[in-house]
Amino acid sequence: MNKIPILRMGDTLLVTIQVDMEDQTALALQDDLAAKISTTGAHGVLIDISALEIVDSFVGRMLAGISGIARILDATTVVVGMQPAVAITLVELGLSLEGVRTALDVERGMALLAKARRERVLGR
Amino acid sequence: MNKIPILRMGDTLLVTIQVDMEDQTALALQDDLAAKISTTGAHGVLIDISALEIVDSFVGRMLAGISGIARILDATTVVVGMQPAVAITLVELGLSLEGVRTALDVERGMALLAKARRERVLGR
Repeated sequence: MNKIPILRMGDTLLVTIQVDMEDQTALALQDDLAAKISTTGAHGVLIDISALEIVDSFVGRMLAGISGIARILDATTVVVGMQPAVAITLVELGLSLEGVRTALDVERGMALLAKARRERVLGR
Repeated sequence: MNKIPILRMGDTLLVTIQVDMEDQTALALQDDLAAKISTTGAHGVLIDISALEIVDSFVGRMLAGISGIARILDATTVVVGMQPAVAITLVELGLSLEGVRTALDVERGMALLAKARRERVLGR
């Protein structure tokens, strides 16, 4: 089983998904991310999927799951780098990635997280 | 063959190596990085190897190669996240990763790149 590393950059956690994930790897990633958000107090999670050429319903659910877990732990998740063909397939499959925020690339994802952070500060 | 994605963050390129690399993948990464440094004008390359449990002489040479290519293209390379056991094995094998800068984690690597950038600006 491959373990996907989680990089910490300030209060953002960065994950690059490179391999087509087995179920075990995906579940381990969920657990690891939840633990890391909790220990680091991170407010943002950035998941790069630019290397994925296929996103099936399992991976889609996993992304939505991570997003939901992070939200409860007070962190915003942004999925970046989705290939156009993947987006087309997702819609054709009827998978809308509900509740998952997306951005074109890492820089725009970072900008989205910075905006979410400002809103969080202003809201309090 | 797996293609390792290169993420751009400002003027730094970030690469997370997660799988034990085949020769083809390593060579493709060198080519991709050289092309990306050239097109983006990036001044820093950060390579995270925290997921690697084994760094053999081939990967060691690859890291040194990337570092050398980047230097010629006016970019600084920092390898981060090396596991202690990997460092021990490298030294035992007599591989000193000459010319390769290292840092404990991504944040310290980023700090090292920021310092290199300041020195570059002052030097001119």
